[in-house]
Amino acid sequence: MKNDRILLDHGSGGMLANRLIADVMLPCFDNPMLSRLDDGACFDVPAGRLAFSTDSYVVDPIFFPGGSIGDLAVNGTVNDIAMCGAVPLYLSAGFIIEEGFLLADLEAILKSMARAAQKAGVKIVTGDTKVVPRGAADKIFINTAGVGQIPAGVSVSGSNAQPGDKIILSGTIGDHGVTILSQREGLAFDAPVQSDSAPLNHLVHRMFESSRDIHTFRDPTRGGVATALNEIAARSDVGIRIRESAIPVKKSVAALCHILGLDPLFVANEGKLLAFVAHQHAEAALAAARQDPFGGDACIIGEVVSLHPGKVVMETAIGGERIVNMLTGEQLPRIC
Amino acid sequence: MKNDRILLDHGSGGMLANRLIADVMLPCFDNPMLSRLDDGACFDVPAGRLAFSTDSYVVDPIFFPGGSIGDLAVNGTVNDIAMCGAVPLYLSAGFIIEEGFLLADLEAILKSMARAAQKAGVKIVTGDTKVVPRGAADKIFINTAGVGQIPAGVSVSGSNAQPGDKIILSGTIGDHGVTILSQREGLAFDAPVQSDSAPLNHLVHRMFESSRDIHTFRDPTRGGVATALNEIAARSDVGIRIRESAIPVKKSVAALCHILGLDPLFVANEGKLLAFVAHQHAEAALAAARQDPFGGDACIIGEVVSLHPGKVVMETAIGGERIVNMLTGEQLPRIC
Repeated sequence: MKNDRILLDHGSGGMLANRLIADVMLPCFDNPMLSRLDDGACFDVPAGRLAFSTDSYVVDPIFFPGGSIGDLAVNGTVNDIAMCGAVPLYLSAGFIIEEGFLLADLEAILKSMARAAQKAGVKIVTGDTKVVPRGAADKIFINTAGVGQIPAGVSVSGSNAQPGDKIILSGTIGDHGVTILSQREGLAFDAPVQSDSAPLNHLVHRMFESSRDIHTFRDPTRGGVATALNEIAARSDVGIRIRESAIPVKKSVAALCHILGLDPLFVANEGKLLAFVAHQHAEAALAAARQDPFGGDACIIGEVVSLHPGKVVMETAIGGERIVNMLTGEQLPRIC
Repeated sequence: MKNDRILLDHGSGGMLANRLIADVMLPCFDNPMLSRLDDGACFDVPAGRLAFSTDSYVVDPIFFPGGSIGDLAVNGTVNDIAMCGAVPLYLSAGFIIEEGFLLADLEAILKSMARAAQKAGVKIVTGDTKVVPRGAADKIFINTAGVGQIPAGVSVSGSNAQPGDKIILSGTIGDHGVTILSQREGLAFDAPVQSDSAPLNHLVHRMFESSRDIHTFRDPTRGGVATALNEIAARSDVGIRIRESAIPVKKSVAALCHILGLDPLFVANEGKLLAFVAHQHAEAALAAARQDPFGGDACIIGEVVSLHPGKVVMETAIGGERIVNMLTGEQLPRIC
C-alpha cells in the first residue's frame, strides 16, 4: 500500500475507479448524499438566495507548512462562498491526477480535505476523478465548487462599497505566498513561515452578528490586498485610502519579501478577508472579528472616499502618498 | 491576436487576468450574475430539492468531430444533473490552461461552451482560471459544476431500479469513444464517425411528462453501458437482463470497434441515457423519448429481474447468454 500508485485505470469509470471511490474516498468523506454515488448529490433548500462558486487548485508544492492542496481547495471555496455573505453548505471535488501519483499522498490530501470540511462545517457531497498519463499533468489538480445560503437581508458585493466605509483587514498579509515561494525555492530561514490557509465563514458570521451593515467582503488571494482593493474601487466606483503603517505583516514575512523583492501588498493570502463596514459599525465589527480564532490581528487599514474613484491611494510609512495599482505580471505561478 | 498565446500572467489574478475575463470571457457568457465578478454568483431558489454535480474534462484531442472539450464540459454536467431528475439551471467553469495555449483556441472553446449552455438552457454564472507553466498540464482542462432543481414528486436514483422495470436506451452506443480514439490514432475511415455530445435535459423532461414512474436515469459515459448497468444492478440489488440484438450501434462504430478490438458496450457515450421505467409506462416513455432530437433511436434493451441480483446478463445475438461485467482496465485514457 505504502508505495501503491495511481494507475490510468483508476480514472476509467470502471472497476478500479469504483474501488478507489469505495475504499479510499468514501471513508474520508462519508455522508449519505455522497454514498448514494448517483451522478450528483441531492439536498433540500428553503426558499431564498444561494451563492455558488468554484476554484481550481494547482499549487506547487502540494504539501507545505500550514497546509496542503487539499485543505486549500476546501478553504478557498468555503471562503469564496463566505465572501458572498453566504453560509457555505455543500462542496463538490474534482480531481485530475497524474498517472503514477502515490496513493498514500492522495490519501493524505483527502484526509486534509475532510478535516478542513469538518472545521468549516461543510459537506463534500459529489465528485469526480480523472487520471491522465504521466507528463500530461503535474501531480494533482483539484477543483472545488460549492453552494451556500445567503441569510435574509444580507447583500454584500464588490460593487457595494460606499464612501465613509471603514476597511477591516482580518490579519497579517503575505503568509501564504511567501511560504509557497520559500518551499519551492528551497530557502531556509531562521523564522519559519507558514500558510494562513483557513476557513473564514465563522469569522464572517461573527462580523454579521455585530452588524448587518457590511457592504463588501473579499478574500485577497492571488494578486493580494492591492489587487482586491483595486477591484473593489473599480466596481464600486469609489476611491480607497489605506495607511501602510496600519497593515500588519509578520516580521519573518516582511524579511522574506524584502530579500525576494516582493511587495507583501501583492502577495497571496488564503485565510484573510477585507470587510467594508459602514463607519458607525466599524468598531463593533472589528471587536467581533477579534473574537474569532482567525481574526485576532484584525485592524482598520483605511476607508472609502468619494475622491479619486477607481483608485487606491496609500499613505506610506514615511508620510508620503502613492497610488497602489493592481498586480501587473505574475509574481508567482501555481501559488494556489 | 491570431497567434496570441496564454501567458502565466493571465492566471495571476491581476491586471492581465482581469483583462482576459473582461475582453474574452464576459462577452461569451454575458449574464448579470457573472458580470458582477464577485467571489461567487448569487441567485434565488424556491423551497425544494436541488441536485449538485461536477466533472472535470481532460479529453485529448480538445477539438474533434461533433464537438470540443468546451461543449463536452457543459453537456456532461448538464447531463449529470438531468440524470438526478433535475432541471439544470446554473453552471460554474474552472479552467486550468497550459502557458502558451493559443488564445484563439481558448476563444473557440469558450464559444462552444456558450452555445452548448444556450442549447441546454443553462447559464454559466461563476468561474476561475489558472495558468500553469508549460509542461505542467497538457493544453487545457475544464471543470464544470452545476446546480439544478428537482421537480416535486421526482425521485430517481441508481438505487431505485425495481424488478419489472423496462430499460430504455436513448440511441446508438460508442459514438463518442470511437471518435476520440480514431482522431487520436489518426485513423481515417470511409464512414466518418462523430461524437454524440449533447444535452439530455430536454429529453429527460419529455420522458417525465409521459410518466413520473421513472426510477433511474444514468448516462453511460466512461465505462459505457456495461459499467452503468452494473453500477445500477449493484446499488439497486437487482438483476438486469439485456438483449444484444436490441442495442443499436452505428455500422461505422461497430466496424471501428471490431478493428480495434473494443466492445461497444464498454465505450463512452456523451449524449445517451439509460432510463429504468415501470413496465406499464415503458411504451409511453419510449414514444416520448423518440419525439426528442436526441432520442430518435431510443429502444427498450432489456428489463430488471429479481434473479441474480447485482449481475447483468446479456442474451447474445446468437442466442446464448453471458454475464456482462464492469469495465476492468482503462480502454482509453482522456476520453472525456
